Amino acid sequence: MEYFTLEKIFSRISKLSEVSAIIGWDSATTMPDGAAQARAEQISELGIVIHEIITDKKVGELIKAAKDKQDLLNSWQIANLKLIENRYIHSNAVPAELVEKLSLACSESEFFWRTAKRNNDYAGFKPYFSKVIELSKQVADIKSDILSLSPYDTMLDMYDMGRTSAELDIIFADLEDFLPSFTNEVIDNQKPFSAVKGDFPIEIQKQLFHDVIEKIGFDFKKGRLDESSHPFCGGVPSDIRITTRYKQDEFASALMGVIHETGHAMYEAGLPEEYRYQPVGQCNNMTMHESQSLFLEMQISRTTEFIKFLKPILEKYFGNNPLFEESNLYRSYTAVEKGFIRVDADEVTYPLHIILRYKLEKMIINEGVSVDELPEIWNEEFKKLFGMEVPDYSKGIMQDIHWPDGAFGYFPSYTMGALLAAQLKSKITKDIPNLTSQIESGNFKPMFEWLRKNFHAKGSSLLSSDAIAISSTGYKISTDAFKEYLTSKYKS
Amino acid sequence: MEYFTLEKIFSRISKLSEVSAIIGWDSATTMPDGAAQARAEQISELGIVIHEIITDKKVGELIKAAKDKQDLLNSWQIANLKLIENRYIHSNAVPAELVEKLSLACSESEFFWRTAKRNNDYAGFKPYFSKVIELSKQVADIKSDILSLSPYDTMLDMYDMGRTSAELDIIFADLEDFLPSFTNEVIDNQKPFSAVKGDFPIEIQKQLFHDVIEKIGFDFKKGRLDESSHPFCGGVPSDIRITTRYKQDEFASALMGVIHETGHAMYEAGLPEEYRYQPVGQCNNMTMHESQSLFLEMQISRTTEFIKFLKPILEKYFGNNPLFEESNLYRSYTAVEKGFIRVDADEVTYPLHIILRYKLEKMIINEGVSVDELPEIWNEEFKKLFGMEVPDYSKGIMQDIHWPDGAFGYFPSYTMGALLAAQLKSKITKDIPNLTSQIESGNFKPMFEWLRKNFHAKGSSLLSSDAIAISSTGYKISTDAFKEYLTSKYKS
Repeated sequence: MEYFTLEKIFSRISKLSEVSAIIGWDSATTMPDGAAQARAEQISELGIVIHEIITDKKVGELIKAAKDKQDLLNSWQIANLKLIENRYIHSNAVPAELVEKLSLACSESEFFWRTAKRNNDYAGFKPYFSKVIELSKQVADIKSDILSLSPYDTMLDMYDMGRTSAELDIIFADLEDFLPSFTNEVIDNQKPFSAVKGDFPIEIQKQLFHDVIEKIGFDFKKGRLDESSHPFCGGVPSDIRITTRYKQDEFASALMGVIHETGHAMYEAGLPEEYRYQPVGQCNNMTMHESQSLFLEMQISRTTEFIKFLKPILEKYFGNNPLFEESNLYRSYTAVEKGFIRVDADEVTYPLHIILRYKLEKMIINEGVSVDELPEIWNEEFKKLFGMEVPDYSKGIMQDIHWPDGAFGYFPSYTMGALLAAQLKSKITKDIPNLTSQIESGNFKPMFEWLRKNFHAKGSSLLSSDAIAISSTGYKISTDAFKEYLTSKYKS
Repeated sequence: MEYFTLEKIFSRISKLSEVSAIIGWDSATTMPDGAAQARAEQISELGIVIHEIITDKKVGELIKAAKDKQDLLNSWQIANLKLIENRYIHSNAVPAELVEKLSLACSESEFFWRTAKRNNDYAGFKPYFSKVIELSKQVADIKSDILSLSPYDTMLDMYDMGRTSAELDIIFADLEDFLPSFTNEVIDNQKPFSAVKGDFPIEIQKQLFHDVIEKIGFDFKKGRLDESSHPFCGGVPSDIRITTRYKQDEFASALMGVIHETGHAMYEAGLPEEYRYQPVGQCNNMTMHESQSLFLEMQISRTTEFIKFLKPILEKYFGNNPLFEESNLYRSYTAVEKGFIRVDADEVTYPLHIILRYKLEKMIINEGVSVDELPEIWNEEFKKLFGMEVPDYSKGIMQDIHWPDGAFGYFPSYTMGALLAAQLKSKITKDIPNLTSQIESGNFKPMFEWLRKNFHAKGSSLLSSDAIAISSTGYKISTDAFKEYLTSKYKS
């Protein structure tokens, strides 16, 4: 039957994509500088092979035939077929040559961005950036016709299938309405704390981080914790690779970063093994993925109960320290501050960073705003949202890797994930009434069992982030739970 | 023109093979245990993709057409076409199904061999080993008809293109004649030494090794030095990955191992960049490759001049130590001893280990000797060559990974490489009269410039190890220089 032939083809694609994931990890952690260019070519070649397999005419015919016999499939297979079709449409829409050009332009631009950012050199970065934008728009325009979506919405569809800017406009407008004054109030009323600074040998930090995430549930027989300049969670479900960055004088924020990545990791590890090599057994939805990392970091770990669990572990590795006092740790982990850098932002101001990027992305992709105008627009919008003047490019438009890398449409997932995380917390608290005391005592098992059953093990069988939100929390992703959560956490 | 289409196809294959090389390194150094099975599937999938590209019918047609227009090609392109054809014949000769069966049988057999070797369990290993032999013979028989070579010679052709057992019979007979009595004489007359043992912190060993190979010429901007349970040189020319094993109480032999791998590394780094992705710009000839590692290790580094260079570096890292006295270091680095284990053997006895394996390989592949008879034959032959009784399977027939892995025909390259290394040393000493003093003072540049010009930069353009031996040293690979070298080094 044609469906099973498709399964075979996607199993091949998945295995090759897993190779790509490991190679990608290597590029970020291990590869010597001098190998960058050849590595880009290797990765691009592997991408071309995958693209060729997926865009083979045969695949289109198989999809058509499989859809005709859909009544012979079970619900997971039907979902898998839909995901396969979505992937096929996205891949097949664009000529191979354009795909390759874009992929090369992104590698180049990302490479030059690293230096340009360090040197605050927007002029030097511009030609590469503008090439990425131009090619990305070409891709989006082509898909726009095929998918009957706006160019920008074709990009959203890649990171959060089915998501539209019509929905985001409403959700983000609500947050833009709520957050600025809320932020000011919180900042005005928050209690002081002492930053957790000191001399914390990196070798001991490594042991501490290892210990903490192992206690949370990370399985080191099927994963690693390494260093990279930008923390991430990569690898494959049997070999999940978290990275972090160490600083001798500060570990607290890196630790929270590692916990964030552990949220991603636990999700990957909890995906349904029997569908590992099929789209339905994977999560390519960034809103869903981010909901899991933010759930663990924000909803579970930046809490008094988690700090009760954490404190004795900190003392085991770094001895008694007045900075580890519970209320000081809690305040330091929930401090709200307006800043220029998204990745340093707390959960209250973070959505404002996203809204800014969302507005600009729409302009870039749908309205064709030029690279020359972008920094000024960025700075103006930032001033509106934060009331602050952006001092330079590195703290403004050049701070993120996403755009240099061609990942337009990705940013909204961070905030949609934060909203979903708040909904999940609200629901799980009802289903596990003694969750708080479990976390205090370091018992994360019931929580992950709940998540596995209601979220992880469903893979992508429900297709969209709204569908899994309904299935696991009772309603679509909205701002309600998030606003309630912020209010009770930051204004009580 | 068809030739250039072939170049494009082989450029793809090379880039995918480079991905495979990095993933292979990861498997040996970094991958957590729990990922082994999925990793095997990933690597196998990538292998299938490469096999599909190379065995596409189109490739055969392109080769035929390109050969018809050969007069339009320059000598490098003609050589490249020959190498492409050889690769195509080897890949295309065998049905995909048999290739996959053999590859699976090898993975399985290698896996079980690891435990069986530890437990001295030949009976348990036998069914897997016998499957590998049977399938390997099937492959060799098929190729034998196509290439008009004996089955075993089709295997030699894969590791040392064009090499025949008729040639090896003569060369190895000569060594078998010379070495046993020579070995006994050397052993009887060698002076005692104190083994370089002590407490050498591994972190300092790492710095020492890094320093030594960087001084020799290894470029850490395009390479790495890491740990693995079996030392090797992997990676790709822009990202060469040497590995070693550290022991706290001993560093001297591991250091020589790292220098050996650095010989491989310098060769890879010196291959002609403009043909990087073509067979003619690569070295797939194990005799040629081994000549470079053995040249650096045996001919250059296990010498009094190198030890003069090395001693102050050892003292810098580990302080003054009577064990580092020049004549003690030299004796420890040139000690000759008869032993059971090939990888622990010195350069005098090493060829005897190879001759043993060569004889058995021919019997296995050409004469169909059964797995049941093999241990006894091994032990008898070993007794003839070394005058010693093999105590168990682990110190006998089960010691090497090559056969469990289906790599029949590989072993002779080690000794052919050693012979070529001696020829190279004899020639380079004439061309660079003050080589000895250069090495003493740590100036390896002229030596590598000579190697690059006369050997590395030629890639595979001369096709065979004998051709490059003639071009760089004036004559085919023979035993003369090697015997002279051993005599002057060990009997003076």
